[in-house]
Amino acid sequence: MKYKISKKNKIVRGLKKASYDKKVVHAILDVSEICNVAFTINGLPQVQPINFGRDGEKIYLHGSLKNRMTNALIESGTVCLSVMHLDAMKLTRSAFHHSVNYRSVVVFGKVRELKTDKEKLLGLKAIINHFVPNRWDYCRIPNSKELNATKVIEIEIETASAKISDSPNSDKEEDKTLDFWAGQIPIKTICEYPVPENDLKEDIEIPKHVLEFYENRKNGF
Amino acid sequence: MKYKISKKNKIVRGLKKASYDKKVVHAILDVSEICNVAFTINGLPQVQPINFGRDGEKIYLHGSLKNRMTNALIESGTVCLSVMHLDAMKLTRSAFHHSVNYRSVVVFGKVRELKTDKEKLLGLKAIINHFVPNRWDYCRIPNSKELNATKVIEIEIETASAKISDSPNSDKEEDKTLDFWAGQIPIKTICEYPVPENDLKEDIEIPKHVLEFYENRKNGF
Repeated sequence: MKYKISKKNKIVRGLKKASYDKKVVHAILDVSEICNVAFTINGLPQVQPINFGRDGEKIYLHGSLKNRMTNALIESGTVCLSVMHLDAMKLTRSAFHHSVNYRSVVVFGKVRELKTDKEKLLGLKAIINHFVPNRWDYCRIPNSKELNATKVIEIEIETASAKISDSPNSDKEEDKTLDFWAGQIPIKTICEYPVPENDLKEDIEIPKHVLEFYENRKNGF
Repeated sequence: MKYKISKKNKIVRGLKKASYDKKVVHAILDVSEICNVAFTINGLPQVQPINFGRDGEKIYLHGSLKNRMTNALIESGTVCLSVMHLDAMKLTRSAFHHSVNYRSVVVFGKVRELKTDKEKLLGLKAIINHFVPNRWDYCRIPNSKELNATKVIEIEIETASAKISDSPNSDKEEDKTLDFWAGQIPIKTICEYPVPENDLKEDIEIPKHVLEFYENRKNGF
């Protein structure tokens, strides 16, 4: 299953890196804790990082009642957001061909504010379970007071694209005889062993869903 | 020295995390390889990740002649960009207080296209030396053909803000007696040992500037 290619999401440069495959897009989103959201304030485009959740073709964000970004998105009704993982720095003999290996996604979607407690809880569940899979079942779910203090928005993915660069350096043949070092520096985002709260009850051990998260990500997202 | 606080960059929530100190903003930008840039295409705000350079109060971006983002920024004359480093996932007993520790920066600036080869080279030098410090002196600098195929833009930082969250979990007292595990999962972005190109001349060893980059970042950015 692929996202429809339109003017919005069509990748013009680096066609070999491009993918519109829903599974590819979902996989990159699902190892991303933070996305970058574009929105407009007083006519000026702005960008801000925020955590999010994905459930099927829906992405969820939340913010406090007065959060400028959340409110700007609700007002505009549409959104563009991106995620990116840096995987390697590519140092070539020519300055011009320096580059990076990466995985990125850009999503275009329609925004809807979730109004009922039932809908808001489903959105927040998606956010918490995206944060750490299965976490929702092992924490206290939000009460009415907390729900009333939060806006939750649902983004229906209209279209999206992924770019994956996992290639060797691209120095031109004539530059390969130059006396400069060239190579790649691999980059990884890893998680370290979970650190329990100081005031944790003595008999509560690190639960399976947290250990699984650690095991899955200790060598890189 | 601090950035002027205006409507654009004033941080409304999480005041304890906020900083307008230029040194703080610069330090976070300087360990970031990628920034996220907001721009407008056909009236729609969009966001895209891109590498960049910083030199004093100037930030430099580059793109191919037809790059939609670069051209949109030149047309608008202004830009907002952000960087973020995720440092820890904070798992609380209540779903509502789940959060992250992070370092982020949002920059607002004025955009100017660099037109002369001399100016473009200075911009590209800032980008390459931001990528890996001192790299510019150890690679072939761009020739006229390459310069003609590239647009380089200079962003004068108009104002900016940083947010740094490096705090313990924030469960409320009444939730601390719940039987849920709580704690933090530290996150790090690290670089691994440089991998030389296969076709490298035999006598070229990994240079000092590359080894220094590795040493400085092997335990986290």
